[in-house]
Amino acid sequence: MRARDLAVEYPTVTLDTPALEAARLLAEQDLPGLILLGENGRPVSILPGTQVLRLAVPPYCQDDPALARVVDEAHADKFLRRLGGKTVRECLPEQPRELPVADMKATVLELAALMARTRSPLVAVLDGERLAGAVTLQSLLDHALEL
Amino acid sequence: MRARDLAVEYPTVTLDTPALEAARLLAEQDLPGLILLGENGRPVSILPGTQVLRLAVPPYCQDDPALARVVDEAHADKFLRRLGGKTVRECLPEQPRELPVADMKATVLELAALMARTRSPLVAVLDGERLAGAVTLQSLLDHALEL
Repeated sequence: MRARDLAVEYPTVTLDTPALEAARLLAEQDLPGLILLGENGRPVSILPGTQVLRLAVPPYCQDDPALARVVDEAHADKFLRRLGGKTVRECLPEQPRELPVADMKATVLELAALMARTRSPLVAVLDGERLAGAVTLQSLLDHALEL
Repeated sequence: MRARDLAVEYPTVTLDTPALEAARLLAEQDLPGLILLGENGRPVSILPGTQVLRLAVPPYCQDDPALARVVDEAHADKFLRRLGGKTVRECLPEQPRELPVADMKATVLELAALMARTRSPLVAVLDGERLAGAVTLQSLLDHALEL
């Protein structure tokens, strides 16, 4: 079994998608993360769900738990409002070192190693330069447990 | 809204649970991760789904994509067999620096910051020393998007 056999169609967003819409897509479709496509149709980033939160959490709260605590409950509840009308591009954190991107020939073990290393429950599968689909942690485990 | 309002009952495993059973639990119940309880009923680790993969992926494959590629497809497909009859304890990677654990009073923003920082889509909520439940990324986002 190779990535080409496991990859399925997966929703994508672009750098111009409103960040709030991206968060909503993640929640409503119960996705493990988001694939950000560049203008050339190639993924420019893959954000695991936890890193989508980073779009909305003020940096000082991410780094220091004590500072997150001083924000009162009413404001804390509404932390997503911070996204306002911003696009994904405006909220995007710095690039991770390695993107969870595989080619069509990647084996199940390569996909698992890539997910473990990049801590991403989602791998984008490329057919050359084009996005062919994605493999999720759940679909990978389902497949591996069948054997 | 505080962690005590958001925390729901969540399946747990122990260090003596067979690792394959833990992987199966994650897949079958579509969980974002696993909570490992110690003998005192307190979480000793929280493993995001991607780190449950680490239990089964040989270390040399995790660190070097080229080495994962040399394993042939038939063996790669069966990588979970490596778990064999091992317990979670025997497969557990080194402890992360910070566990995604919150107290009952943690706000939505604190939970979001904790998930982003520890890259865990799952936070264990403690009532004193006892596990009160867990908050998932999905339930946190669902709540935050309502407002």
